[in-house]
Amino acid sequence: MTQNFRVIPDEAFGSKAIIRIRDINAIVYNYNLFKAKADATNSLCAAVLKGDVYGLQIKDVAPALYKAGARHFFIEELSEGIELRSILLYEDIHLYALGGLLHGEEHYFKQYKIIPCLNALEQLERWNDYCSKNGKGSAVIHLDSHMNRLGFLDDEVKQLSDNYDVLTKHVNIELYISHFFDIKGSDPSNCYKQLEVLDGYCSILPPKPISFACTDSVILLDNEVFNFDMIRPGIGLVGGAPNAASPIAPDARHTMEVYAKISQIKTVREGQTIGYGGAYTTKRDIKLALVHIGYKHGYLRLLSETDSNPKGVYMFIAGYKIPVIGKISSGATTVDVSDVPESILNQVHYVEVIGPNVDIKFLADISGCYDILGALGVPNIRIADYTLEDYENKFR
Amino acid sequence: MTQNFRVIPDEAFGSKAIIRIRDINAIVYNYNLFKAKADATNSLCAAVLKGDVYGLQIKDVAPALYKAGARHFFIEELSEGIELRSILLYEDIHLYALGGLLHGEEHYFKQYKIIPCLNALEQLERWNDYCSKNGKGSAVIHLDSHMNRLGFLDDEVKQLSDNYDVLTKHVNIELYISHFFDIKGSDPSNCYKQLEVLDGYCSILPPKPISFACTDSVILLDNEVFNFDMIRPGIGLVGGAPNAASPIAPDARHTMEVYAKISQIKTVREGQTIGYGGAYTTKRDIKLALVHIGYKHGYLRLLSETDSNPKGVYMFIAGYKIPVIGKISSGATTVDVSDVPESILNQVHYVEVIGPNVDIKFLADISGCYDILGALGVPNIRIADYTLEDYENKFR
Repeated sequence: MTQNFRVIPDEAFGSKAIIRIRDINAIVYNYNLFKAKADATNSLCAAVLKGDVYGLQIKDVAPALYKAGARHFFIEELSEGIELRSILLYEDIHLYALGGLLHGEEHYFKQYKIIPCLNALEQLERWNDYCSKNGKGSAVIHLDSHMNRLGFLDDEVKQLSDNYDVLTKHVNIELYISHFFDIKGSDPSNCYKQLEVLDGYCSILPPKPISFACTDSVILLDNEVFNFDMIRPGIGLVGGAPNAASPIAPDARHTMEVYAKISQIKTVREGQTIGYGGAYTTKRDIKLALVHIGYKHGYLRLLSETDSNPKGVYMFIAGYKIPVIGKISSGATTVDVSDVPESILNQVHYVEVIGPNVDIKFLADISGCYDILGALGVPNIRIADYTLEDYENKFR
Repeated sequence: MTQNFRVIPDEAFGSKAIIRIRDINAIVYNYNLFKAKADATNSLCAAVLKGDVYGLQIKDVAPALYKAGARHFFIEELSEGIELRSILLYEDIHLYALGGLLHGEEHYFKQYKIIPCLNALEQLERWNDYCSKNGKGSAVIHLDSHMNRLGFLDDEVKQLSDNYDVLTKHVNIELYISHFFDIKGSDPSNCYKQLEVLDGYCSILPPKPISFACTDSVILLDNEVFNFDMIRPGIGLVGGAPNAASPIAPDARHTMEVYAKISQIKTVREGQTIGYGGAYTTKRDIKLALVHIGYKHGYLRLLSETDSNPKGVYMFIAGYKIPVIGKISSGATTVDVSDVPESILNQVHYVEVIGPNVDIKFLADISGCYDILGALGVPNIRIADYTLEDYENKFR
């Protein structure tokens, strides 16, 4: 067995077919890589913990990052903020909700001291009105620098500028934020266009601290230009990057490992089809194995390998890459283990689905996004879930 | 507002942006549609509850189906079976695990009286050996009629036939099952080929009851030929079908509704791009709205609408279809509400994501599978979750 293929005892699986191990210390390590980039430009380093930290789980990640010095936390939705308040019982944290202030949520934001990233004039009006009756509030203004998604767009920025004092009479604006929409490729020109739009906005608004940079931009763009007052890494904390070839640093760490049991290795002859729709045809006689993870566990169906749409996704067992073949089922995935020696297949009854040998960035490239990480990280009672620390205490 | 667009009070959302309503009585209704098809051929009607009943949740569905007369339940993985045993405390149920008997699971199967659907000779040998020491066991034999996924394939069927008495000395084989792989289209020829393979297998094995039919086959194929001794509807129970045009019956019922809050309606000019990657370009000046559901909640990213891959996915608000545009984000989806009157947008602050006006079958056709239903049904503390009965008791 290779050195970096994790040896897992049966009792760690228990009655589950899947194990998930979350390395919280690795997230702290990655945070510090970003913090160094922030320090270099005298910027704050926040942490984006949305989507339960892309499956790495707020309850474990937030205290570790607080201990590492993080004080500014972005979550997406109110319920994540309420949970975070119950975890970090400190007065010196700033908790921002990227999703904004939805209809009827005002009193929750006030009660839990969550700062809404106001995405529209209507939200600012509603928050200002609420705060006029219930005490001064704080807010972030999300400026839409032509991503055309969340945030104040041209007309609304103008209206904000024209009526700033009235609109913000009962609200302290702490920060302006914006967001890149085209950072995956090698051409940063859209980023510079967005910067121009942002500059235009800021030229007509009162000066405030600015945060423009997500994880990807910190890696790919000129930090002196784009870091501004605060950077806010998110997916990068958990080992993501714009693409598999662009990590934050050569030593950025993996944070999640997923293993699944295999069963029934059998020979399928050349020219046979595999699984649903007969969508994959064997090119030779192969040894097929069943991996007991599927799309209902978050192993996305779009990672399937079919004749008409080959993706090249693989899993890993004790030194060997094993290609996914055929369509992924709800609870099972078929893999080609022809090249794995019998001695290993007789001894090892599970495979690595993601981990040190199957880079999450590679799967994210193929699925187009980190939906794979979020999907695999969803709270799920069908999965044996451990932090790495817990796992090592129990099984080593 | 139209008659069948559900009016939801703010307090039903609480601090969540998403509501899920599961109609358990509708599942029972659909079960009875299948039961009538089973009765017509003197077959049993089992129920497949895998993937937590595709998100409809075992804890609510299983007792309702038991009450309706169901006694044979298929789940996929061991942990679902263990949960089901804790819910249905009856001696007269048969509980089959489709995933088979994974390495190290023998004592769980024995302890919880779960019947493994043995998928390979190795599993039968292991189970027979275990039962020789721990008391007679039961099993189903899964025959692989050239789907080339789970089950005994040609060589192993031959070996089973040659050594049946020895291999099953301590195991009572209750049933043979098999599974269709190509049932979505209009050409059933692969089903008849699979039937031939199954006939060949059965001709060399001792006679046992047979179950070959999943939901789709019951709808599309000749029931007299394919129902055999037991049918086992799964996705059909929850309102699924081979495709949107082929429901089990005209009056088959929807079982899950999902609603999500909207925010910040803004005008985006013609020729602008929307969201990540600038992948969608507006064809006219539009009114854009943000729906606060995204792929981290199970609203699959592959439903995105881009210039290069238009899918035509929509949501619904008070009588109006609203097209999804641009790439779906982790927590948000952009929709075009240009055609919705201001009066509605000022009054209604949420949309229907799936439900009576957005057929789950339509989304399943587009994503290629019912992964959308499973994904939206995952246990998720970020979603306000109700059975329809609970919802109506609380809010009506």
